[in-house]
Amino acid sequence: MTLLRSWIDSANSATTDFPLNNLPYGSFSTDESHVRCGVAIGDRILDVSSMEEDGFLDLSEEFVFAVGDWSDFMALGPAVWATFRARLTAMLVEGAADQTEIARYLVPMDAAQMHLPFAISEYTDFYAGRHHATNVGTMFRGAENALPPNWLHMPIGYNGRASSVVVSGTEVRRPWGQLKAPTEETPRFAPCARFDLELEMGAIVGVGSDGPVSVAEADAMIFGYVLLNDWSARDIQAWEYQPLGPFQSKATATTISPWIVPKAALEPFRCETPAREVPLLPHLQDAGPMLYDIALEVGLAPEGAAETVIARTNYREMYYSSAQQLAHHSTSGCPMNVGDLLGSGTISGPTKDSRGSLLELSWGGKEPITLETGETRSFLEDGDTLTLRGAALGDGYRVGFGACTGTVLPALADPFAREGAL
Amino acid sequence: MTLLRSWIDSANSATTDFPLNNLPYGSFSTDESHVRCGVAIGDRILDVSSMEEDGFLDLSEEFVFAVGDWSDFMALGPAVWATFRARLTAMLVEGAADQTEIARYLVPMDAAQMHLPFAISEYTDFYAGRHHATNVGTMFRGAENALPPNWLHMPIGYNGRASSVVVSGTEVRRPWGQLKAPTEETPRFAPCARFDLELEMGAIVGVGSDGPVSVAEADAMIFGYVLLNDWSARDIQAWEYQPLGPFQSKATATTISPWIVPKAALEPFRCETPAREVPLLPHLQDAGPMLYDIALEVGLAPEGAAETVIARTNYREMYYSSAQQLAHHSTSGCPMNVGDLLGSGTISGPTKDSRGSLLELSWGGKEPITLETGETRSFLEDGDTLTLRGAALGDGYRVGFGACTGTVLPALADPFAREGAL
Repeated sequence: MTLLRSWIDSANSATTDFPLNNLPYGSFSTDESHVRCGVAIGDRILDVSSMEEDGFLDLSEEFVFAVGDWSDFMALGPAVWATFRARLTAMLVEGAADQTEIARYLVPMDAAQMHLPFAISEYTDFYAGRHHATNVGTMFRGAENALPPNWLHMPIGYNGRASSVVVSGTEVRRPWGQLKAPTEETPRFAPCARFDLELEMGAIVGVGSDGPVSVAEADAMIFGYVLLNDWSARDIQAWEYQPLGPFQSKATATTISPWIVPKAALEPFRCETPAREVPLLPHLQDAGPMLYDIALEVGLAPEGAAETVIARTNYREMYYSSAQQLAHHSTSGCPMNVGDLLGSGTISGPTKDSRGSLLELSWGGKEPITLETGETRSFLEDGDTLTLRGAALGDGYRVGFGACTGTVLPALADPFAREGAL
Repeated sequence: MTLLRSWIDSANSATTDFPLNNLPYGSFSTDESHVRCGVAIGDRILDVSSMEEDGFLDLSEEFVFAVGDWSDFMALGPAVWATFRARLTAMLVEGAADQTEIARYLVPMDAAQMHLPFAISEYTDFYAGRHHATNVGTMFRGAENALPPNWLHMPIGYNGRASSVVVSGTEVRRPWGQLKAPTEETPRFAPCARFDLELEMGAIVGVGSDGPVSVAEADAMIFGYVLLNDWSARDIQAWEYQPLGPFQSKATATTISPWIVPKAALEPFRCETPAREVPLLPHLQDAGPMLYDIALEVGLAPEGAAETVIARTNYREMYYSSAQQLAHHSTSGCPMNVGDLLGSGTISGPTKDSRGSLLELSWGGKEPITLETGETRSFLEDGDTLTLRGAALGDGYRVGFGACTGTVLPALADPFAREGAL
């Protein structure tokens, strides 16, 4: 867990998310019309689409980076992932040959706009953090019935909406929805008043399957990880979620970080899941350390004001790994495809300041939190900018994801009155 | 509602699903490697991929049928849908010109194998049949609490798994899953013992949206309809579905009919939703007759034995139309895309023999039904072949979907032992 030094100075800093140890994958443009595949290194992006076009890369008989996202590359499979990473490392390591030639493909990161780094096939969201499930369960059903009976036996999940996944930086419009408070007799259609975040990690499936897979096989199918904010409309959710689960409350947007950190970059940070209260069935048992030690934080900045870090936690707080989630997902024979995105579920720690949602931080709005500006928050206000950050911390370096950010826009005055209506 | 006569004799029969009034869209091959777009007419398929290739169709600057499914055609929008249908009608109507030339593109239907007719973007399944929701609710929660409090106010739905959608004729393997009967202390991993069907219609979104749409707009976005069998593992469902809804219980397979009946062919059969017990909120109110009078039936044939029709019902039994479902789906701003598939929910009628699932027909297994062979069924047995049929009935003709069929294969002895494992 020591820094691999690069000939690109900014990659050797202890504070960059993107040392040579990382080499995460993103999609960028410097000119909106031409989205290219890039690899982050320090404060630069290596333009691998242009390198491939110029004949410097020959990963496949066809161009895999021409489309401007990483889906075609993922589909080439783990052996090519490893070869490509080794070649990138050789190109960028201190003392590498051909530095002048390679430098021609480096783009300043601050001149780039980021785009979705892969085509999301389908999106599944889990509920696999013990502290989160306990907190939410306690609020909704009381401490005695906090965890549903199935919770300790399998990673509970539901299918989300892939079309709602957006890249960091995309503004998020406060949704309208059907709401009914317990005190109200009938529902009404109104803007969400309890708009929230969920701090999660997302695992990206890079190898498909067409039948049940073991936990070890599932781990091998994962291409990499992103930060993920599962924006949640709590008041819509409360009214709609029985009996078939969250639907419109989770369909406005889900924001992911611009960079996919490859699993290979996280290898040194693997760690065990927590001790099991009851043994898992054999097909779901851990097959090695498949969580990762990734420090996470959430910042909230009111419009025009400074940010307050409202939560600090760690991905190792999860009860189930992404590999266990993917194995469970496949048990029915459900076909899994390249580009499937699996949200970990909200990552809350055991302490009050390590909770990954405002629902938990403000205890359902009963205990508003105070920001450094002196303002309080129960849920998100219009103009709030949320930023998730995450990094695995090595010795003098960090393997990070880049900021995963989004600003809340006010609800439309009339959601049906718009230009371009049919 | 009278028959439009075609110069293709078989299309003028009172028993064909495919008179000139229908002209449904499918994907077929006579040679596995070359999947083409076809239009059903009587006992023939008009090969429109080859017609386009030969320069007989010029719907767009690019070939829309080359890919072998209808996704690119759908994306051209409602004006092109109407033009194309008018041209097909003119080509195939009695007395049309160029019959010899067109006849060269007719393929015998019984020589064709059918494939998925469009790329399924995302799949959503609803729970919008009043009789079904009441039956299931009564079994699970008692008659007093049969309908959830939100049910009469909005079409309850959940996101399903698009990757599991298959075309009629695909065999369906009985899944394994995590099961726990109320009498058992801990769950086990075992083959599903309560495998079931759900008789549904599927609506296909042909125009995308990026914000809330009205019910009238939603109706205009729908391209056409298919029959849909939402295979359901009831024992897996019972253990997993709280609190986040069905997941692996619905992920093994969903079978759709081979033919998409265009909305235009169903226009004469539009009908009203049932009377509302409580008024809907304005944005969900009916904006015209948006259900369809489509007679439906389910046949069950044990392996090697004759079929028994186990249920007869009608699509007009639904409480919510697909347009209302799509409008609700969009309320949060959820982007809807070309190729999204919306399952209506199980279509049960008011009588015992009009129930669209074995769960209801056998009342949770307590009242097994008797087949014409003398065998009984609570749930599906290995080797059973299920066939859904549906048609709107005109005066001396029917607008049908073709059979939507699937045979249940036995569960694998060991689901993890297979060739090609990673």
